[in-house]
Amino acid sequence: MPFEMNLVQRGARLRRSPFFDATQRYGARAYTVYNHMLFPVCFGDLEEEYWHLVNHVTLWDVAVERQVEITGPDAYAFTNMLTPRDLARCAVGQGKYVVITAEDGGIINDPVLLRLGENHFWLALADSDVLLWARGAALKSGLRVKITEPDVSPLQIQGPQAREVVCSLFGEAATQLRYYWCFETTLDGIPLVVTRTGWSGEVGYEIYLRDGSQGDALWERIMEAGRPYQIRPTGPSDIRRIEAGILNWGADMTLENNVYEVGLQRLVDENKPTDYIGREALRRIKAEGVKRKLAGIEIEGERIEFNNTRWLVTVEGESVGAVTSAIWSPRLRKNIGYAMLPIAHTAPGTALRVAFPGAGERQASVVALPFMDPGKEIPKG
Amino acid sequence: MPFEMNLVQRGARLRRSPFFDATQRYGARAYTVYNHMLFPVCFGDLEEEYWHLVNHVTLWDVAVERQVEITGPDAYAFTNMLTPRDLARCAVGQGKYVVITAEDGGIINDPVLLRLGENHFWLALADSDVLLWARGAALKSGLRVKITEPDVSPLQIQGPQAREVVCSLFGEAATQLRYYWCFETTLDGIPLVVTRTGWSGEVGYEIYLRDGSQGDALWERIMEAGRPYQIRPTGPSDIRRIEAGILNWGADMTLENNVYEVGLQRLVDENKPTDYIGREALRRIKAEGVKRKLAGIEIEGERIEFNNTRWLVTVEGESVGAVTSAIWSPRLRKNIGYAMLPIAHTAPGTALRVAFPGAGERQASVVALPFMDPGKEIPKG
Repeated sequence: MPFEMNLVQRGARLRRSPFFDATQRYGARAYTVYNHMLFPVCFGDLEEEYWHLVNHVTLWDVAVERQVEITGPDAYAFTNMLTPRDLARCAVGQGKYVVITAEDGGIINDPVLLRLGENHFWLALADSDVLLWARGAALKSGLRVKITEPDVSPLQIQGPQAREVVCSLFGEAATQLRYYWCFETTLDGIPLVVTRTGWSGEVGYEIYLRDGSQGDALWERIMEAGRPYQIRPTGPSDIRRIEAGILNWGADMTLENNVYEVGLQRLVDENKPTDYIGREALRRIKAEGVKRKLAGIEIEGERIEFNNTRWLVTVEGESVGAVTSAIWSPRLRKNIGYAMLPIAHTAPGTALRVAFPGAGERQASVVALPFMDPGKEIPKG
Repeated sequence: MPFEMNLVQRGARLRRSPFFDATQRYGARAYTVYNHMLFPVCFGDLEEEYWHLVNHVTLWDVAVERQVEITGPDAYAFTNMLTPRDLARCAVGQGKYVVITAEDGGIINDPVLLRLGENHFWLALADSDVLLWARGAALKSGLRVKITEPDVSPLQIQGPQAREVVCSLFGEAATQLRYYWCFETTLDGIPLVVTRTGWSGEVGYEIYLRDGSQGDALWERIMEAGRPYQIRPTGPSDIRRIEAGILNWGADMTLENNVYEVGLQRLVDENKPTDYIGREALRRIKAEGVKRKLAGIEIEGERIEFNNTRWLVTVEGESVGAVTSAIWSPRLRKNIGYAMLPIAHTAPGTALRVAFPGAGERQASVVALPFMDPGKEIPKG
């Protein structure tokens, strides 16, 4: 089915990725909007794309992961102020999965941070304007930094054959790449940064394009290298990322949540020697304990569709919380997801009921995360 | 044609307006995304909705105009720091069309600001996270403020019969309401703020709902009051707002532009006695003069479709700028719009050519703004 852009677009407000023409040519069927940009989320059928991801290799246009670039003589000190992780432990050429925290401990974003130089950082963003947050925070910081959105657009290559594809593109350097590290390179003269990161729990790489005018050339070059491995363009797989226990900012966590509520406390370096925004709040929250938590849940019964709203969760007839993500796992043959619940209802085995808008209720229960062994491709701290 | 939500939505990340169910019931055909929320932009046909707006009265779900609420003992001082307008001239109960400026003079957003109390402000936002900007700017400001996104969701009632509808809902208070002023009230117990503002150049009001659980009740109450005046739900009209010379943040102006480039210098109070973010930059830009400007243009030939990308503008074969918005005006029977152009090409009468992606070029020319007499319903400074 061809996609009618006018259903989601009105005028030139929404930006297009350097890979937009390619995604149209390869039959993108649906676009959502993310960081003020069109985001191709499906080229076929969600389950078909999932099986391709777990069996072969897939190519995703995630140019919507806009970068915030921080440079200048105080870039290290400033970036280190934005996150509870201790960036003293992040070498040049290394990356970290981080949270950006507000003064009240709320999660503003959960980007992959890359350190390209002593004082050169990129934050690959989830869907919120960290550019504005960082520029606001810099105003009276007394630190000399330049904060911009550079011409950088990532692609993800994810799946068990991802290593072969990246190897055929970049040679041995790619196989040597450690998890969450990166290298700068060119491909047919196209400037790139390659990282071993991704949003799938499968073996995966991200290719950060540094020249938006060459999106089409890069896309075709990757498709060509991937042909022997049956590469195909898809959207990111919510099925796979939920199986692996990966969260989606905006759905499973928002500015209203802190790391202790959503199980991301590993992203706080307790002994970080320098101050950062939100430190006092996080200390207090940790000391007091949180009142609610994001829990893994299984929903009984036949295959559900991916939830487009926050379904209510009830216990003994009383509304106690909401499902943030839930989807059918074809490998587990179960409906799995997350719900934000009062602590009292988060022990594995707790019985819940989930209300479907206009479609009755179902039995559900709390289960431990992740749903499937994530393997080593999940950020660990 | 029913709208397939899965074409724009993947999971529960995108928020829904309190009027979402109503817009579905009334047949919204297309939704875009704005401030992380679904935004119904069309219920029928753009020209049909335009004619209804200029001849009768229309109801728009603009809950996507999320509010930033600023309260606390220093709320006035802080809010006054965010904008080049002098808020000493904004009484309690009054509103102002303002720009929020970055330290380099860039336009972060162009909200309607409402002053609900001495130290109580709302900013009704265009599509950027001013909540993050303001919270970042407050960090080391030394000012005692609380900055939140409250449960507030605006509707617009726009068109020549808008006054009758609002009068039938709220009585005489509404007819007395001066342009850009507001009053607090309730309707069947639903808490509201009513303003005489809008994005159409027609007579118009906004009804700010202060209790998201009552969206459906408010919507039906307004539809009922509007029935004698043939009210109908529509999206905002890009045709009408372009005729009136109104700009759309994200398309016609972005963070990369300043007020002098886009003709909004009336939003700078030159003699404002207190400092604000971006003041030094704006003084410098004004003194040096800008290199480019947003100009009104007419594009020759037959009816064009609303531009979904920035069409290139050429002069004597050389690319000089881009069209930011362009659409067919059924009353002027012309294609009208805006282009960002080097100063040298912005004098009325200048000949241009506009390149349509994959569809050749057309002759165009620079014209004075606005295209049609905006009447008194346009913010004047």
